Amino acid sequence: MSSSRVVRASVVQASTPAYSLTDTLDKMERLTRLAAERDKTQIAVFPEAFVGGYPKMSTFGVVVGDRSDLGREEFLKYYNAAIEIPSPAISRIEQISKATGVFIVTGIIERDLGTLYCTAIFVSPGQGLVGKHRKLVPTAAERLIWGQGDGSTLPVLETSFSGTAERNNEVTTKVSASICWENFMPLLRTYYYSQGTQIYCAPTVDARPVWQSSMVHIAIEGRCFVLSACQFAQEKDYPADHAVADINARHPDNIMIAGGSVIVSPLGKILAGPLLGEEGILTADLDLDDCIRGKFDLDTTGHYARPDVFELKANISQGC
Amino acid sequence: MSSSRVVRASVVQASTPAYSLTDTLDKMERLTRLAAERDKTQIAVFPEAFVGGYPKMSTFGVVVGDRSDLGREEFLKYYNAAIEIPSPAISRIEQISKATGVFIVTGIIERDLGTLYCTAIFVSPGQGLVGKHRKLVPTAAERLIWGQGDGSTLPVLETSFSGTAERNNEVTTKVSASICWENFMPLLRTYYYSQGTQIYCAPTVDARPVWQSSMVHIAIEGRCFVLSACQFAQEKDYPADHAVADINARHPDNIMIAGGSVIVSPLGKILAGPLLGEEGILTADLDLDDCIRGKFDLDTTGHYARPDVFELKANISQGC
Amino acid sequence: MSSSRVVRASVVQASTPAYSLTDTLDKMERLTRLAAERDKTQIAVFPEAFVGGYPKMSTFGVVVGDRSDLGREEFLKYYNAAIEIPSPAISRIEQISKATGVFIVTGIIERDLGTLYCTAIFVSPGQGLVGKHRKLVPTAAERLIWGQGDGSTLPVLETSFSGTAERNNEVTTKVSASICWENFMPLLRTYYYSQGTQIYCAPTVDARPVWQSSMVHIAIEGRCFVLSACQFAQEKDYPADHAVADINARHPDNIMIAGGSVIVSPLGKILAGPLLGEEGILTADLDLDDCIRGKFDLDTTGHYARPDVFELKANISQGC
Amino acid sequence: MSSSRVVRASVVQASTPAYSLTDTLDKMERLTRLAAERDKTQIAVFPEAFVGGYPKMSTFGVVVGDRSDLGREEFLKYYNAAIEIPSPAISRIEQISKATGVFIVTGIIERDLGTLYCTAIFVSPGQGLVGKHRKLVPTAAERLIWGQGDGSTLPVLETSFSGTAERNNEVTTKVSASICWENFMPLLRTYYYSQGTQIYCAPTVDARPVWQSSMVHIAIEGRCFVLSACQFAQEKDYPADHAVADINARHPDNIMIAGGSVIVSPLGKILAGPLLGEEGILTADLDLDDCIRGKFDLDTTGHYARPDVFELKANISQGC
Amino acid sequence: MSSSRVVRASVVQASTPAYSLTDTLDKMERLTRLAAERDKTQIAVFPEAFVGGYPKMSTFGVVVGDRSDLGREEFLKYYNAAIEIPSPAISRIEQISKATGVFIVTGIIERDLGTLYCTAIFVSPGQGLVGKHRKLVPTAAERLIWGQGDGSTLPVLETSFSGTAERNNEVTTKVSASICWENFMPLLRTYYYSQGTQIYCAPTVDARPVWQSSMVHIAIEGRCFVLSACQFAQEKDYPADHAVADINARHPDNIMIAGGSVIVSPLGKILAGPLLGEEGILTADLDLDDCIRGKFDLDTTGHYARPDVFELKANISQGC
Amino acid sequence: MSSSRVVRASVVQASTPAYSLTDTLDKMERLTRLAAERDKTQIAVFPEAFVGGYPKMSTFGVVVGDRSDLGREEFLKYYNAAIEIPSPAISRIEQISKATGVFIVTGIIERDLGTLYCTAIFVSPGQGLVGKHRKLVPTAAERLIWGQGDGSTLPVLETSFSGTAERNNEVTTKVSASICWENFMPLLRTYYYSQGTQIYCAPTVDARPVWQSSMVHIAIEGRCFVLSACQFAQEKDYPADHAVADINARHPDNIMIAGGSVIVSPLGKILAGPLLGEEGILTADLDLDDCIRGKFDLDTTGHYARPDVFELKANISQGC
Repeated sequence: MSSSRVVRASVVQASTPAYSLTDTLDKMERLTRLAAERDKTQIAVFPEAFVGGYPKMSTFGVVVGDRSDLGREEFLKYYNAAIEIPSPAISRIEQISKATGVFIVTGIIERDLGTLYCTAIFVSPGQGLVGKHRKLVPTAAERLIWGQGDGSTLPVLETSFSGTAERNNEVTTKVSASICWENFMPLLRTYYYSQGTQIYCAPTVDARPVWQSSMVHIAIEGRCFVLSACQFAQEKDYPADHAVADINARHPDNIMIAGGSVIVSPLGKILAGPLLGEEGILTADLDLDDCIRGKFDLDTTGHYARPDVFELKANISQGC
Repeated sequence: MSSSRVVRASVVQASTPAYSLTDTLDKMERLTRLAAERDKTQIAVFPEAFVGGYPKMSTFGVVVGDRSDLGREEFLKYYNAAIEIPSPAISRIEQISKATGVFIVTGIIERDLGTLYCTAIFVSPGQGLVGKHRKLVPTAAERLIWGQGDGSTLPVLETSFSGTAERNNEVTTKVSASICWENFMPLLRTYYYSQGTQIYCAPTVDARPVWQSSMVHIAIEGRCFVLSACQFAQEKDYPADHAVADINARHPDNIMIAGGSVIVSPLGKILAGPLLGEEGILTADLDLDDCIRGKFDLDTTGHYARPDVFELKANISQGC
Repeated sequence: MSSSRVVRASVVQASTPAYSLTDTLDKMERLTRLAAERDKTQIAVFPEAFVGGYPKMSTFGVVVGDRSDLGREEFLKYYNAAIEIPSPAISRIEQISKATGVFIVTGIIERDLGTLYCTAIFVSPGQGLVGKHRKLVPTAAERLIWGQGDGSTLPVLETSFSGTAERNNEVTTKVSASICWENFMPLLRTYYYSQGTQIYCAPTVDARPVWQSSMVHIAIEGRCFVLSACQFAQEKDYPADHAVADINARHPDNIMIAGGSVIVSPLGKILAGPLLGEEGILTADLDLDDCIRGKFDLDTTGHYARPDVFELKANISQGC
Repeated sequence: MSSSRVVRASVVQASTPAYSLTDTLDKMERLTRLAAERDKTQIAVFPEAFVGGYPKMSTFGVVVGDRSDLGREEFLKYYNAAIEIPSPAISRIEQISKATGVFIVTGIIERDLGTLYCTAIFVSPGQGLVGKHRKLVPTAAERLIWGQGDGSTLPVLETSFSGTAERNNEVTTKVSASICWENFMPLLRTYYYSQGTQIYCAPTVDARPVWQSSMVHIAIEGRCFVLSACQFAQEKDYPADHAVADINARHPDNIMIAGGSVIVSPLGKILAGPLLGEEGILTADLDLDDCIRGKFDLDTTGHYARPDVFELKANISQGC
Repeated sequence: MSSSRVVRASVVQASTPAYSLTDTLDKMERLTRLAAERDKTQIAVFPEAFVGGYPKMSTFGVVVGDRSDLGREEFLKYYNAAIEIPSPAISRIEQISKATGVFIVTGIIERDLGTLYCTAIFVSPGQGLVGKHRKLVPTAAERLIWGQGDGSTLPVLETSFSGTAERNNEVTTKVSASICWENFMPLLRTYYYSQGTQIYCAPTVDARPVWQSSMVHIAIEGRCFVLSACQFAQEKDYPADHAVADINARHPDNIMIAGGSVIVSPLGKILAGPLLGEEGILTADLDLDDCIRGKFDLDTTGHYARPDVFELKANISQGC
Repeated sequence: MSSSRVVRASVVQASTPAYSLTDTLDKMERLTRLAAERDKTQIAVFPEAFVGGYPKMSTFGVVVGDRSDLGREEFLKYYNAAIEIPSPAISRIEQISKATGVFIVTGIIERDLGTLYCTAIFVSPGQGLVGKHRKLVPTAAERLIWGQGDGSTLPVLETSFSGTAERNNEVTTKVSASICWENFMPLLRTYYYSQGTQIYCAPTVDARPVWQSSMVHIAIEGRCFVLSACQFAQEKDYPADHAVADINARHPDNIMIAGGSVIVSPLGKILAGPLLGEEGILTADLDLDDCIRGKFDLDTTGHYARPDVFELKANISQGC
């Protein structure tokens, strides 16, 4: 592909080393370096909660109308595994990006005083942290541990990718992030489309097969590239006392989160993945002109909208 | 399945006998009768433009900046094949519904003075025509021949299905229709979800494989049953002089519209189909309680919405 | 003519140098300079789509129900030939206006994220871009490539023309633009009349003889000066591979758009033109008092209206 | 032309025998009979004020702030020449229609208590008087002698033409009337278009050359047949003491109203006329399908409208 | 008179200095100042069209069916003599009111885009322009030059008059205006009565003796004070080339408008005037309690109405 | 006057012989015969309450909150003087009309079970009683003795006057009646105007000088002939014990009701009267064409109305 409007992009399918921040950041560095060197990638998307961890199967001792002391201890441990913005952990990620030249989008658990947020951050090799997005609605039991984001953290970032050895052009595009079931929120997606997102990042831990349908649908609906990065995690990736599906059948290799990372083009073509049953990196060339080719017959916030019938009012404020 | 909240539903995959209204209505009667008698169905969804026809591959002599006399003649012919509301054709459909006891949702080409609309009508055995929906945005070359609907024809109809021999209960639910690429309009879908649609009918002529992804996604996103009825049409189903993909390789069996009708549950399970390569009727039992089961963890216009961040203003007026 | 309420106005009949933005802006500069120096003109109207081009005879590979890859490539090329507001191209037009002292009204193809619009911009020597109007309803195949404007881009601009050497008075008047078949929209025209338009610009590519009847009618109906600027284009003005009327008889001199630019007074007198068969500039003195003389016996939104019987509700919002 | 949707129509260009009702009705009978027998016409349109007369050049003794006794006498005479609905004169016209089988549209001066109206009546061979339209806004000095119509007399009449010897089909269409400068009222025209007028009758006394432009424009804009019937009148057609343009150069042959009757097709083709310099009857075959062919690319109250931007509120009540 | 509910009011009988706005406003200032200083007046009513002028005897070149170029020029001149709201002329009147402390009701010729209106404005010393009324139906030849007002300009203004040296009370009352023959419109008067008008201003140019009967009748019928201000104008008050009654007997002293200004009490008593044969100011004390005294036995929109038999529907909207 | 549209009309100014029905009817016969023979009159209008009497100065013993026995006796006496419809008294009036050929409009006191009404009856030589009108709102103390009429007795009667010796033409016109202060009810008058009244009869007992202003005003406003017949009554015309203005200065010649009968033309010209200080008959020729001449410039329910702003709803039912 010789187009001058091509960006090489990767999705990283990996688990969080159990509640260890150091191990996690080391792993991020290792994987980013691999994507840069082996795949010559320009942007890498890591899964939801990659930094801080996704406490799959936990209940935090909560039942309706009661909480347990043990659950409070578990929350304290989880709270301590989360990171603040700014913080040394953020600086470390900025260094990884700078060192590798890779634009990083990664899920983190963000600590802000007493509340944790499920956040995606955008880190640029040249400018460091350039934006963050906090998940708007946690799903089910996530509501026990994460707060809600708002209109101040919904960036669609204009981003420039400088030329690589292969392609010495500079490409400017727009990048956004929607975390896990946020991808089922039609108004959020519509807002992102209306801002011109072309690289639609979808960090997740949803590994159900039907997830694939939604990723393809969103690519078509938004005429954008969808980069879904899911965790692949086994029991061994969690602390030894972590909750599991069957407490009577604990095994280090039991799967906790099954993966399914995928890259889809604006016309619904699967460019890479879905990756199942292992950690790994998927890489594809994104010809950004495909967004234009696709909008030729469908632009849901342009010629294919009906603002006279349906108007989306977005309450967006300035944020990070 | 013994639930008292079950409706038996069919999607009909069929072509329009070329521009012949009489043949089309006869075919509708035959197929509805079959669905009623063989499958004991209570609601049948016919494809987009089933009455009036979908002039696939036609250009109506239009190029940018010019129209031809021949194209005007083709439009006149197409105009004459369309039907008005009310009209004898509508009465005939009401009679089919009444005689078979089947609630019919069907695509029609609706004529209103000088403009044609791609419309879906809702016909009840007991009440006759109870609503209509006009497609909001025609796709690509459809814009040459169809006008745009508006906020007066977006019904979500509360509908009661009386008990059958098997299940002598009465079930009340809500039915809506979105035609073809309207299904890619996130704000329209959101509106329908907000009105409580449970039987989301999707008459279409889109036979691309990726269509399946969207049907599954919508079922999940809206926690509703999706009933997509597509045409299956071959060259022989069109007038002899109709445009075809390859004018040098005309053959009666050449496929014009490939089908792909499907029924999906609110959790994304495919209940029937996709049906490919032939005409036919797909039937499935819809346990309406699955909509509730699904909304437990996802209700995009309820607990999973963020009206403080995103508000949908809908300009809806009273209509048929 | 010695009146102190006279404006000298020109319509420019010219083609777009095939998809070349640089050439187009150079041509605009040259023609504006000619109108300024030779004709001492104060306002110049350029045709529809003069910047960006009018892809006459193209189909963009669209037939009912299908699009081709080739068509998507053609759209991408056309998309890239369009301009954004603001952009360097707009700045260039502002410079041309400033350097020549000529108020410019020109058709452009405007790019806004994924959708193109057929737009007319108003550029003042002193203030630069002062307004834009997006065509409300594209005609026929234009609907394949252009979106629809709305009530936010319907300006009727109060404009002052400073004195020239010949006439050192300052004249204030109102200017509007209606593009091509918008001129057949009676409610749009009525709205413009109700806002007091006196210099009614009609950039177009409609070169049919009957167009002349409509221009005269509008002048009479609205008691305004009608300045219709049409393209004159031959095959040589298009890219070599562009669609043509007869692919077997390609010739550089074949006419693609035949012209017919004209200037009409409020009482229906043709002041200049119609110009046929060549590029060129038509210039006339507009005695703005003729609008008042004409409204003596006909003011369709004043003493000749019947607001008790017919009321026009316009949904106008603030815009550029 | 062998189409089964053809109506043969005539416009009658004639003067009113000076203020003589008997002579006028005799003349109407003679001309209708001629159109029926010679031209096999099915509908005939007579000019504005054909019955009652158009007092061209009169001032009725009115200056700003004063009226004269002589003017009041002239008004009394004109008042007595007008007719009521119903009245023997109306019955006579009904008889003419019945006897000839011709649907008649004619301008009359209608007397209603103390006020006169410039009215067009519709008279059917089978049903007699079926509707009337009163001019909404008299022009200039007409305001001294005629009142204003309102929303109760704006019929668009569904009319059936029974088969003739040549064409034994029955054709149903819609007929409207706009009198003289009403044809410059864009909202009135829009209302008629929205009601589906196909035979747009324009009785007039406007004999200026620019009238032709408007007739062509309206046909194109409304995609309807325009039948404009103008008076041709000379000084000898008026009472001997009637006002004339030049009182010092009275001559029986001096032209008072110059004619210009014309029939135009929905695509702007002139089917008959303009007739100048003499009385006479123009006849043409109207293929009503041309209205549909024309609406293919322009339907100003359907697919080519923007009801979200411009809405026409019409205050229409039931009337004759 | 020692009542605390007394307002001192004047009617000003004067001509418009021919088409000169500056002279007219200077004259208004001089006369208002005189009424304030000499008569201690609190409200002054000026005649119809005092600002802008009443073109008595003009025809503007209009005959039935024809207009002349000369007439259009006369209209243009008259148009240019009219004023807009707001405008410097309005500001000047506000300054006159403020400087003198006199509430001014004056006739103006109001320019609104292409149409002129015969308007009465209400100007308060403290608030400036507080309302305007446009004449609903121009009379006879006035229909050639003025448009019609509507329900948006029918104010009945609650007005407070602060105390004067003589009477240091504050009096609140209601003021309305009916221009010239509007005073013959029984439904308009009934509407004003129903809104409680007490100071019924009647600017006019009707100088016929029978005008006095109507003024007395209205005072009785409405139980209100009637303040009729008429112009007194001679040929010398018009431009030299203005139309006159007898072109062969032009004389500067010939009377054009004979005056007849008058002030009448609610029981029909003539408090001042009629003033004939000269310019001048009439002043009287209005004991507002007389309105109540009069309504004891006659309240045509209260105890003396029969709403079960006759109901007045007024279509009133918000306006200036 | 040689017009063929002339009616000769009289107003009769006379008193009611005190409470004597026989004397009253004899007096009516005598006066009618005089008008017929001496004046060749065709229509005669008698005053309000001519039959039955107007109990001027009476209080019927009523004070607020109390009635006296004496007052009840007085009412009984007055009740007995009133007449029913039909009754011998009515027959007698019909005979007078028939014998003299004079159309009679007269005030009567009508007895209908327990209530008296102040009524005007219309009696034709050929058809006898053809209509009646009951006063809608009695004035002041009249409310103690008379009930209110309603929408069933508001006739405007089409009446034909056969030719006389002098003028052997037949004239058809419309006649109405408004009694005393009803003439101040603008909506009632408007209703009569809207029905085309030309001979507007105003039987009254209002003898104040200002009454003359209202009669002139109504003639102008309604463009109708106003025939006001007032009583002329002295103390001797009442029963000896009747209330009087000054009980200490009773004198048979003291004036109780001073007269003031008058006939006014549609342009406000007084054709006869006012008659003061005596009984008598006023006669004038009414040229009905003057109604038309007058409506030329004023028709308050036709061309000079604004039904869009003011609509009169009249609740009229069929009656006598």
